[in-house]
Amino acid sequence: MSSSLLNKFGRRIRWGMVGGGIDSLIGETHRLSARVDNRYELIAGALSIDPLIAKKTSELCLINNDRSYEDFHMMAENESKREDGIEVVTIATPPHLHFEIAKIFLAKGISVICEKPITKNLSEALELKQIVEKSKCLFALTHCYTGYPMVREAREKVKSGAIGQIRQIQCDFVSGPFMVEEKDIRKKHWRFKPEYMGKETILGEIGTHAYNLATFVTLEKPLRVSANLRVLTYGRQTYDDGQLVFEYSNGRLGRMWLSFVAAGNEHGLSFKIYGTKGSLEWSQEQPESLYLRSPSNAEQRITPGFPERMSVGGYHACRLREGHPEGYVLAFANLYRDFADKFISKKIGVENSSGHFPDIYDGVETMKFYDAASRSNQNDGAWISI
Amino acid sequence: MSSSLLNKFGRRIRWGMVGGGIDSLIGETHRLSARVDNRYELIAGALSIDPLIAKKTSELCLINNDRSYEDFHMMAENESKREDGIEVVTIATPPHLHFEIAKIFLAKGISVICEKPITKNLSEALELKQIVEKSKCLFALTHCYTGYPMVREAREKVKSGAIGQIRQIQCDFVSGPFMVEEKDIRKKHWRFKPEYMGKETILGEIGTHAYNLATFVTLEKPLRVSANLRVLTYGRQTYDDGQLVFEYSNGRLGRMWLSFVAAGNEHGLSFKIYGTKGSLEWSQEQPESLYLRSPSNAEQRITPGFPERMSVGGYHACRLREGHPEGYVLAFANLYRDFADKFISKKIGVENSSGHFPDIYDGVETMKFYDAASRSNQNDGAWISI
Amino acid sequence: MSSSLLNKFGRRIRWGMVGGGIDSLIGETHRLSARVDNRYELIAGALSIDPLIAKKTSELCLINNDRSYEDFHMMAENESKREDGIEVVTIATPPHLHFEIAKIFLAKGISVICEKPITKNLSEALELKQIVEKSKCLFALTHCYTGYPMVREAREKVKSGAIGQIRQIQCDFVSGPFMVEEKDIRKKHWRFKPEYMGKETILGEIGTHAYNLATFVTLEKPLRVSANLRVLTYGRQTYDDGQLVFEYSNGRLGRMWLSFVAAGNEHGLSFKIYGTKGSLEWSQEQPESLYLRSPSNAEQRITPGFPERMSVGGYHACRLREGHPEGYVLAFANLYRDFADKFISKKIGVENSSGHFPDIYDGVETMKFYDAASRSNQNDGAWISI
Amino acid sequence: MSSSLLNKFGRRIRWGMVGGGIDSLIGETHRLSARVDNRYELIAGALSIDPLIAKKTSELCLINNDRSYEDFHMMAENESKREDGIEVVTIATPPHLHFEIAKIFLAKGISVICEKPITKNLSEALELKQIVEKSKCLFALTHCYTGYPMVREAREKVKSGAIGQIRQIQCDFVSGPFMVEEKDIRKKHWRFKPEYMGKETILGEIGTHAYNLATFVTLEKPLRVSANLRVLTYGRQTYDDGQLVFEYSNGRLGRMWLSFVAAGNEHGLSFKIYGTKGSLEWSQEQPESLYLRSPSNAEQRITPGFPERMSVGGYHACRLREGHPEGYVLAFANLYRDFADKFISKKIGVENSSGHFPDIYDGVETMKFYDAASRSNQNDGAWISI
Repeated sequence: MSSSLLNKFGRRIRWGMVGGGIDSLIGETHRLSARVDNRYELIAGALSIDPLIAKKTSELCLINNDRSYEDFHMMAENESKREDGIEVVTIATPPHLHFEIAKIFLAKGISVICEKPITKNLSEALELKQIVEKSKCLFALTHCYTGYPMVREAREKVKSGAIGQIRQIQCDFVSGPFMVEEKDIRKKHWRFKPEYMGKETILGEIGTHAYNLATFVTLEKPLRVSANLRVLTYGRQTYDDGQLVFEYSNGRLGRMWLSFVAAGNEHGLSFKIYGTKGSLEWSQEQPESLYLRSPSNAEQRITPGFPERMSVGGYHACRLREGHPEGYVLAFANLYRDFADKFISKKIGVENSSGHFPDIYDGVETMKFYDAASRSNQNDGAWISI
Repeated sequence: MSSSLLNKFGRRIRWGMVGGGIDSLIGETHRLSARVDNRYELIAGALSIDPLIAKKTSELCLINNDRSYEDFHMMAENESKREDGIEVVTIATPPHLHFEIAKIFLAKGISVICEKPITKNLSEALELKQIVEKSKCLFALTHCYTGYPMVREAREKVKSGAIGQIRQIQCDFVSGPFMVEEKDIRKKHWRFKPEYMGKETILGEIGTHAYNLATFVTLEKPLRVSANLRVLTYGRQTYDDGQLVFEYSNGRLGRMWLSFVAAGNEHGLSFKIYGTKGSLEWSQEQPESLYLRSPSNAEQRITPGFPERMSVGGYHACRLREGHPEGYVLAFANLYRDFADKFISKKIGVENSSGHFPDIYDGVETMKFYDAASRSNQNDGAWISI
Repeated sequence: MSSSLLNKFGRRIRWGMVGGGIDSLIGETHRLSARVDNRYELIAGALSIDPLIAKKTSELCLINNDRSYEDFHMMAENESKREDGIEVVTIATPPHLHFEIAKIFLAKGISVICEKPITKNLSEALELKQIVEKSKCLFALTHCYTGYPMVREAREKVKSGAIGQIRQIQCDFVSGPFMVEEKDIRKKHWRFKPEYMGKETILGEIGTHAYNLATFVTLEKPLRVSANLRVLTYGRQTYDDGQLVFEYSNGRLGRMWLSFVAAGNEHGLSFKIYGTKGSLEWSQEQPESLYLRSPSNAEQRITPGFPERMSVGGYHACRLREGHPEGYVLAFANLYRDFADKFISKKIGVENSSGHFPDIYDGVETMKFYDAASRSNQNDGAWISI
Repeated sequence: MSSSLLNKFGRRIRWGMVGGGIDSLIGETHRLSARVDNRYELIAGALSIDPLIAKKTSELCLINNDRSYEDFHMMAENESKREDGIEVVTIATPPHLHFEIAKIFLAKGISVICEKPITKNLSEALELKQIVEKSKCLFALTHCYTGYPMVREAREKVKSGAIGQIRQIQCDFVSGPFMVEEKDIRKKHWRFKPEYMGKETILGEIGTHAYNLATFVTLEKPLRVSANLRVLTYGRQTYDDGQLVFEYSNGRLGRMWLSFVAAGNEHGLSFKIYGTKGSLEWSQEQPESLYLRSPSNAEQRITPGFPERMSVGGYHACRLREGHPEGYVLAFANLYRDFADKFISKKIGVENSSGHFPDIYDGVETMKFYDAASRSNQNDGAWISI
């Protein structure tokens, strides 16, 4: 069991962060997630490009002053020299910096947990893959929705043949909170700035999540894509809505709706997967319910926390007994926990194949998707090979 | 109020049917629906091409022997000569016959209630439009889902501006009961026989329902369509699954998933409509719940039976008090009732603008969609103007 | 099959109504329900004590003037003398008249379909039972919720042992539409007038529904009851809220919440039944979903329209294919249809054990409950044997 | 804001645990919850009466050997002498020990976070209240469900008058996982052993949760109770099912169903609260949805994460943006966070009235309920004043 790993290791992993200041939501989410299982000690950070925010954040995180860096180069340099330097770094900056930061820390032998999208384009992702492969480091990509117990259970259901051969795939990320364009350029999120990933950031920001989730659960990759993206909000410079159709082998079809402006929606990530024998449906907003339907039986609502009912892989992601909602942070924490267990196993020389975290190869796949869908969109939705 | 119309008319409408024998589900659905409001008296029929089924059905319907016809030509001929002949006929045959039957009865001055899809192709629909326009008859097309109180309420919400200007439209019909191809050709439903409407019958059988529903609720028509249809079932000669993307004015997008083989699904008709101010969601399987969401308020579940809360148009479709599910048959019956009230109003010379039933113009629109989507599919999903 | 009965009978049952004028909701509900299956012809009525309403209602029902009676005595007298006189009468008056009306029609050999509660007290119910037993007539009591497919399926599940031995029963009727006391005495519904059934009418009006539903599904009768009723609305003279606890054999407990004033509720009838092996949950407002839960499997949502999945008794109540909501009127219509089939079977001398309608014995049981619960309430909730 | 408190404090609270070994579920839940917000450092523990489990647990918690105690007396003694001794202790043992442990630590000036039920009976609770009042320590009782954002929002809705004056209260805890009595006495949970709290432990184990939740949300306390408890499981020595009715001022009624053996249920805690103007419904298994209903508007589903929509008190309990499920652990963590903020505020001399945790007075109230309901049950459900 994973807890015995921690037992043997006898201490927490020395951990740092780049980005993730208190002015960002994602930084605190990483910290909540990392703390849950007591496997990380946050001891260093370059938490913001704004020195004031960096300072305030590191104080709140109880990081010593001398390890609160203004610059990630310096952080990589200093930490790698210290005997008690960080072993793992989380990158929570906007995506245009991911490549450079990852490269620097990996060069110093520091493993990386990287926010999505992995890089700002496909070529960076391909180069990063080579860097990771040559390093002796671990690399995780926080497509966090793969940490949900019911998402993992869905994957296991697919693997076990519960729904037969997959034929139709829908994975949508139809969110609604960004109905108005931010006018203050300083407050504007990178997802609405074309300079970082081009006009198609929606494909990177939420498209990669949906794409990774769909491939994780179905174990299938589409062959080509037809994408149509639109700007629906006055004054916005990046796409904020779009419809994608995928073609898988043997002509099978899938689809994906991406939106930042589905008025009244909250989060909006969900999937519906149909096979020859049945289907699975899941929505992130009600993450403890996985619906299994088949032509011959009543609809089943599968819920977490039952060791005797669930697959090993699905139950591995549960911390609580039946009827106790796990929620988003514990799902995110599963990536941190599984990464830590892999890291510690490696350190202490123990075999460990349990758990899951998206890795560099997932990252490359999401950028292939990003690339092909961008080109399709630029060609009025023409089919483009992925 | 509509009931006073019946009062003045003093009798039920003399009604006949072509098709709809007891071997078909749809025939009995029409009869249940027509009986609910006591506005139709079924007195004549050519209820099946199989004389035995015709006979048995007419007996069960308590139709006199001499008005149970083996042939719809004879029926039109005889009934139009009788003083007590039928005034309205329902056509419930497969679609390849709709045009011919409608033409004959309209020629005799008998109004028509026609099952969908209106005809087997666009040119027939256009010709039928001219015939209807020249006649003094009423013509209804039973896209029955427009009879649901919450569907009508949704339309009124859209009209009232409750969700602002429409920007994204999804209307799916993703059903699941036809996972296996019928091998006995005599038992095979017309929807799986290419000889009636071509290989694209799925567009006619369920696509027209979804299309009509979307246009009814949104009051919008798309400009072009990209359609990809597939045969997923071994041995099937017609498409049984497909993905469609629509473009509306100003580049706005919509989508439609059509399927007969979504394993484990039951009916599967639903819509989600987003505007600048909010959104509406409805599913036929839970038809008494209409969800209204907006960025500024909690999700609302709107339910029927409240005169003081609903629009006039929405409440008009309610027969029951709050908390009493109306169900499918009462929705279907609303088309029969509203048609009857129109018919009777005309007869007794009374103004009547309440109610709704899809008409010949809806029929033409659905066939334009059928035509364009078929051609797009034949061109690997290329955009085709509707 | 039941439709062949109608076939042999060759005509509709001659039917009349007492009460049920257009100023009442329940009258039209009976008529909608009776018309659905084409087994009744409404030809006579004493439809209101208000002659104007009686006249208007009979006109709307297309009843001939000479058979629209101002008085039910006269109606029974005349109709029983006619060769084409009614065979079945529906009583839809307030409950204080049920006994007298039923008695008169039964004496004339006319079968009775009676609204609930069966009578205004237990002694009338017991006397009526003797009258029915001595007559050759059928007697139905419209506890309409037993007509729902999923209610009947629940009963069959219980009978088949799907949830093991029953241990805990909840059946609530917690409705909300009567938050304000009607001040106009002429408009006040009998349910809020103590002169008809005493201050405890809530037990008769909705309590008997819940009680009948619970006994129908569980096949169990409680041994004693502890009831606490309250008047929550200013100026109201009858109880409008209450909590009841039941004890079944071996000390097993049940409970029932009755309310007219659960603010924001719509209908509010539901049950939850637990056994040694699993449990069933159903709510009238979502009547097509029956939830089956067990300690060893995922929750199942059972839905109607599947001949191969359902029990014979459950499927008998379905008119539509899967995914098409049956709704309230078709459930109510099942009682009319099953009564008609029983009536016709008897007439034409055919065995027929399919279907179900609550009868005089159900009526007596509900009045025993009414009587015991009233007395418990008058004794501060003391346990009283039923 | 609360995070600035931590900032000023500059370190985490020194924290210990009594009970909560890895053989118990509740111990790890406390630790997960305490870690989330980085306000506690677990440095000492007497984690089990079984020395092996105590050792293993403290190793997993990375507690130093010299502060892993076999005995809580020794722990209180030693820790209170150390300069770096614990400031707060969590008591996670069975309830019969709570009083003694709390007393010892409070005597040493160490604040207490105590698992529920507070004590094994009312007299202990009353004595503990005096001890707490005389101490300068904080005392929290982990009725954890009051930590949910939507529970706090419900309370604020009640306070704001959103549902008017409360009239009907239901709070149930109908769980299902304990269908079979454990035969191995060593594995048997204290909740099924009469020696700790008598045969009525169900009132203490889950009844106090439901009671505390109801009083928290409604701000009302009942005046009397009628309780009927039952043993439904073969071989069980304690009650495992029961029905309770409450009477509040002016005769208003409430009810509570408690069960360990509702077959197929998972957790089963929920409330429905009705007032003169509307009602609120919440279930722990779908904790992010709070339903608000009223006679005049459509049902609203209120969800967390919206600062502009929620009350201050409700939003205070949210860590995540809209659409991200908070789940059970973050709710539990709110008690730990709010306790820490109170503790730190006191230490650094800052006013802090935000947040909430159940305290010694809540504990006394739950034991009054326990006491009265036990006596009612012993008298066949007679009304007993609370």
